[in-house]
Amino acid sequence: MTGRDGGAGLVPHDPSPVVILVRPQLADNIGAVARCMANCGLFHLRLVAPRDGWPQDRAWRMASGADRILEAATVHATVADAVGDLHRVYATCPRPRHVIKPLLNARAAAGSIREAEGRGLRAGVLFGPERAGLDNEDMAQADTLVRYPLNPDFDSLNLAQAVMVMGYEWWMAADTTPPAQLLTHDTRVATKAELERFLVHLIDQLDACGFLRNAPKRPGMVQNIRHLFERGEVTEQEVRTLHGVVAGLAQGRRRLGRFEDDLMTALEPDEG
Amino acid sequence: MTGRDGGAGLVPHDPSPVVILVRPQLADNIGAVARCMANCGLFHLRLVAPRDGWPQDRAWRMASGADRILEAATVHATVADAVGDLHRVYATCPRPRHVIKPLLNARAAAGSIREAEGRGLRAGVLFGPERAGLDNEDMAQADTLVRYPLNPDFDSLNLAQAVMVMGYEWWMAADTTPPAQLLTHDTRVATKAELERFLVHLIDQLDACGFLRNAPKRPGMVQNIRHLFERGEVTEQEVRTLHGVVAGLAQGRRRLGRFEDDLMTALEPDEG
Repeated sequence: MTGRDGGAGLVPHDPSPVVILVRPQLADNIGAVARCMANCGLFHLRLVAPRDGWPQDRAWRMASGADRILEAATVHATVADAVGDLHRVYATCPRPRHVIKPLLNARAAAGSIREAEGRGLRAGVLFGPERAGLDNEDMAQADTLVRYPLNPDFDSLNLAQAVMVMGYEWWMAADTTPPAQLLTHDTRVATKAELERFLVHLIDQLDACGFLRNAPKRPGMVQNIRHLFERGEVTEQEVRTLHGVVAGLAQGRRRLGRFEDDLMTALEPDEG
Repeated sequence: MTGRDGGAGLVPHDPSPVVILVRPQLADNIGAVARCMANCGLFHLRLVAPRDGWPQDRAWRMASGADRILEAATVHATVADAVGDLHRVYATCPRPRHVIKPLLNARAAAGSIREAEGRGLRAGVLFGPERAGLDNEDMAQADTLVRYPLNPDFDSLNLAQAVMVMGYEWWMAADTTPPAQLLTHDTRVATKAELERFLVHLIDQLDACGFLRNAPKRPGMVQNIRHLFERGEVTEQEVRTLHGVVAGLAQGRRRLGRFEDDLMTALEPDEG
């Protein structure tokens, strides 16, 4: 699995924001954060006064191969020291009180970080300790607060989850892959003409088997069948499969017909 | 902290998609998934053939109070059984191969789920086992695949992180809070007139202290000062603080001035 190779493929996508964990308590969480960062193309990790010191084996065990991020992480005594070389500092906090500050949701913050990075400014995001979150002094170091508008009845996010949401939005802010597509692999989306040839084949066979024998209802029935197959994109391979399905069913019926003829013949009273 | 109360506040936000964990391996991950679900307003959890059986104490320990979600979880022998009552099934998979199927990113999938829910359809999302992910037979039960366009060099997501991203997008798809605002708490954004009165006060004092004594440069300097204070939103409370700062500095100078006068007087040679 990618990322299980000790993170050999992990290199900084620069510019990318610095993740700053303020007084993190559990090394497990620091490791889980590193894994999330790798998932999201983030690389720069700073730890402000980690409770249990640094480095910690447990972090490496939880990082699932994002070792390079942990190895490059730096430790700082204060938030001020950790943000000293940055131009923009964002602070994540679920319920800021008594603070006058711009407040963005994660998506808007990601856009703001990308915009700053586009102007050559270096950004960092502060994440508070597991239980208490950032205090007012930490927040005073930030120019912008970030709040995720999630379930207000259950708003305690795991530290790695908080980093994941921010990192995911940062990645998505520059993502150019199409939001929706039809996976076709070795085939391609069928053209209208290919689909039409199949519909002609199907309707021929339905005429042949008597399914469409009710003349007044026939146009409506044909239209319903057409609507069904036109509803979504169909691939060229699927059209070929559908041709086969119809042919198979029709042939089976004929074969069954022959079997019935044979059966009838066998059951006929002997003339001898 | 909210959510540490045993999840008393946790109730289903209906309609909401069912989270279906297929052959999950670690009870820790199931618990972490429940916590993420609570964060995102999801409630319905189904487990298909959990490796270590169910229930498992470790899940409750990792759920940080999302107990109700775990208590309401149901166990199923097969994916087919787990999706039987649903109308729409989405399957998350990082690198689908040899599958012809619509593929959405998490954001588009969230929109699609909301749209289906708006028509009274019930949706579910399949998440594969920790290492292998969903297999082709699992994916055949889904009408749509979901892929997160994250770092292709490190795309192994923790199970709870995968649920978090999908749940976050589902919540965001109906979020109506403003993406950006200025936190003002007990104050409010200052009007242009309030800011103007401060600028007049400041410039008066700067004239008085001689800072603007260079007549040809004065208009440009005044304009630069104005630009600085007009750059972002300022609150009414901050304008009052700024008035105080200017008054304080001016008064301090006058006081210093008086002190200097006293000093000069004291230093004057005695006339006696």
